[in-house]
Amino acid sequence: MTGKLYGVGTGPGDPELVTRRAWSLIESANVIAYPAPDSGESFARSIVADAIQPDAVEIPMVVPMRPGRAPAQSIYDEGADAIAEQLDAGNDVVVLCEGDPLFYGSFMYLLVRLRDRFEAEIVPGVTSLSACASAQTHPLVARSDILTVLPGTLDDVALEQAITRSQAVAIMKVGRHMTRLRSLIDRLGLLGKALYTSHASLPHERACSLDDAPADAPYFSMILIYKGDDPWIS
Amino acid sequence: MTGKLYGVGTGPGDPELVTRRAWSLIESANVIAYPAPDSGESFARSIVADAIQPDAVEIPMVVPMRPGRAPAQSIYDEGADAIAEQLDAGNDVVVLCEGDPLFYGSFMYLLVRLRDRFEAEIVPGVTSLSACASAQTHPLVARSDILTVLPGTLDDVALEQAITRSQAVAIMKVGRHMTRLRSLIDRLGLLGKALYTSHASLPHERACSLDDAPADAPYFSMILIYKGDDPWIS
Repeated sequence: MTGKLYGVGTGPGDPELVTRRAWSLIESANVIAYPAPDSGESFARSIVADAIQPDAVEIPMVVPMRPGRAPAQSIYDEGADAIAEQLDAGNDVVVLCEGDPLFYGSFMYLLVRLRDRFEAEIVPGVTSLSACASAQTHPLVARSDILTVLPGTLDDVALEQAITRSQAVAIMKVGRHMTRLRSLIDRLGLLGKALYTSHASLPHERACSLDDAPADAPYFSMILIYKGDDPWIS
Repeated sequence: MTGKLYGVGTGPGDPELVTRRAWSLIESANVIAYPAPDSGESFARSIVADAIQPDAVEIPMVVPMRPGRAPAQSIYDEGADAIAEQLDAGNDVVVLCEGDPLFYGSFMYLLVRLRDRFEAEIVPGVTSLSACASAQTHPLVARSDILTVLPGTLDDVALEQAITRSQAVAIMKVGRHMTRLRSLIDRLGLLGKALYTSHASLPHERACSLDDAPADAPYFSMILIYKGDDPWIS
């Protein structure tokens, strides 16, 4: 009998924001896999480190971080092979995914390689989107509003169109696009309604207006725009 | 000293998809508040019922469910007053919120009434958006895609524009708009790419193609559209 593949969301960063199901799956996992940078610690693993069994088999998938470029698919080929070997041996494999596995996550690259041969279950997690709104104590989206989620890597034309057409906007992966994004939002007259959050839910979380945000924003930062004058009062 | 207001996400329905922090806050809460229907059980309360202390003070806010109409704001005035009374007496109050408190939630109506007088903290939760994608074992959004979240209550023109302009679309609150939404999506040639989910993460969850979905969709149902041919492979 083959093992089962679990794609498990670890949430935005605070170990307390992991779901009960994710935590207990990780606690009982004999094999875990996770993305890891070239050097340093895996963020997903660090969130749930206290739940991992000391003798668990660990499969780190080293994904080089190069801004603006998707990692080589060979990394996921190799990761999927290592995971498949465990599944074929009858071991369940828990793949740790920052945030939610299916929301801009790399888990889908593993899923597409393994879904036809193995049973798969996804455990959803709290997204950075929800964590940033919580950090700001400010609604993300309300009533019959349209919410648009955009990567900051898009060009100005695409961003402007989407921002113009929505009541609520979240721009993810701000990072090195900070200066350009702030100029664009200022030009659209929305600087006073834009909020900046980095490392939401972590001890070094920063939540402020976009106007007060640092120019050297980290990759894990987000801009939220809600257009109305406190439109959530009615 | 006044108490602290907690807006706590209870996630999509499965008690196991509550975060560790939400669960422990509820377990230690002396006062909880939650929205409740005219008759029957509060959904948010039912999710975390096993965590609630038997002697906790409970403040149900009865919100009549009338499709297409926002509930009277007097309900939130009264709810906020009852909560403020507890906070003024020095008791913390945990407000239970289905899904995530700031994602199309009614918690914001309480927050806006109480935020100037009391300390408030939000505990984000897993949204129905993530739960539906998980139920389908299908990516919600990937790479540099634009994700648009739309209430099914919008008119056809607004829906068509938003669907046309995004790679990934989630239509919430399908309910009685099912037939109209399915016709629209069919007309746009996207029926083969549309997924239907109701009651995600609950025992009576239904996850199928939109083509196979029932005409009498419940309020808590969602349509997900991802336009590419398995675009998450690259």
